[in-house]
Amino acid sequence: MSILITFEGIEGSGKTTQISRLKNHLIARGHAVVVTREPGGCQIADRIRSILLDPANDAMTSRAELLLYAAARAQHVSEVIRPALQTGQIVLCDRFTDATLAYQGYGRKLDSALIKHLNELATDSITPDLTLLFDLPVERGLGRALQREKITQDSSEGRFEREALDFHRAVRNGYLDLAAAEPDRFRRIDADRPIDTIQAELQVLIDRVYETLQP
Amino acid sequence: MSILITFEGIEGSGKTTQISRLKNHLIARGHAVVVTREPGGCQIADRIRSILLDPANDAMTSRAELLLYAAARAQHVSEVIRPALQTGQIVLCDRFTDATLAYQGYGRKLDSALIKHLNELATDSITPDLTLLFDLPVERGLGRALQREKITQDSSEGRFEREALDFHRAVRNGYLDLAAAEPDRFRRIDADRPIDTIQAELQVLIDRVYETLQP
Repeated sequence: MSILITFEGIEGSGKTTQISRLKNHLIARGHAVVVTREPGGCQIADRIRSILLDPANDAMTSRAELLLYAAARAQHVSEVIRPALQTGQIVLCDRFTDATLAYQGYGRKLDSALIKHLNELATDSITPDLTLLFDLPVERGLGRALQREKITQDSSEGRFEREALDFHRAVRNGYLDLAAAEPDRFRRIDADRPIDTIQAELQVLIDRVYETLQP
Repeated sequence: MSILITFEGIEGSGKTTQISRLKNHLIARGHAVVVTREPGGCQIADRIRSILLDPANDAMTSRAELLLYAAARAQHVSEVIRPALQTGQIVLCDRFTDATLAYQGYGRKLDSALIKHLNELATDSITPDLTLLFDLPVERGLGRALQREKITQDSSEGRFEREALDFHRAVRNGYLDLAAAEPDRFRRIDADRPIDTIQAELQVLIDRVYETLQP
């Protein structure tokens, strides 16, 4: 049975590690799994991603940024997510529509009605069945992200890590608001714990959700 | 006095040549002139342009395309057009909002209300003072564009030239519809004439428009 599970949270919240482990868990259970991410997930959206995350593009206006996210999402949903769901696969997506509400809405203070409208347009009204919010204090998350940047020398860890702390706090609070508004879809995961502890919790959670969603 | 003049028309309609000559004419008359184009016109929008026009991106959905145009326009208006108008310059822009209505609306059959909404969003409601529609039969225009491609070996002359003839006919008819709906803003230029003849007509037209618009 097809399910779209999205993973949300601020920089350094540990989403990516958990997605990879959850994928292995689901495959071991015999499921067909597609792992993808936003912005990106397909060739055209990856080219849009490289514009969005390039630190050289600091002149980018909030509105252009929002429209680029919507463009990348439209392509990604059409090319990757919808076909995977139509063929009965489980889709694990690293960031999705809620990220735009949190970063561009709560972070950049763009109108949330406009963002919701663009999200609907880009997804053609596909919504996640389950959204896991990896929550932890901003200082802890950014500490991890900066550590990673130092280790990998990865300059693609770019424009967003360099935003001010207040910006990231607004994003975190935005995520918590969104989760409170849709308690059935969201699960808050305390991300300030050891990787294995979180992994064990997620496996139990996913197995239960999967049983609940079975027809 | 600041004026935004946009140049519209199908491929091979001769806009670019006329823009360059008109620029010289206006400068000779003592005006400050900015020549720009869409998609593109600034660094970020040019990167979006390269995604839009790359023939390798034939998997691009109509909706992603529309959103990329809007993103490029938002950046271009904010970074180039608005500042130029605010400092009293004449802006000559090769393609603008009407191109999106003609190509994505009439050509790709996307909802025109949606396109208008995205145009307003991207331009922050800036509209052209004058729009020159370079009109000629599709076969004549495409013949010129293909000729140019052969001569310059310019592979950026890409995705749109390769569309079917019916698509370009729908675009041309779309432009004519748009011009008929806003006769005060649009001037139809018969583009199937010698370059010098068109140039002479444009100079007279622009001088007159400029006098009319003087405060």
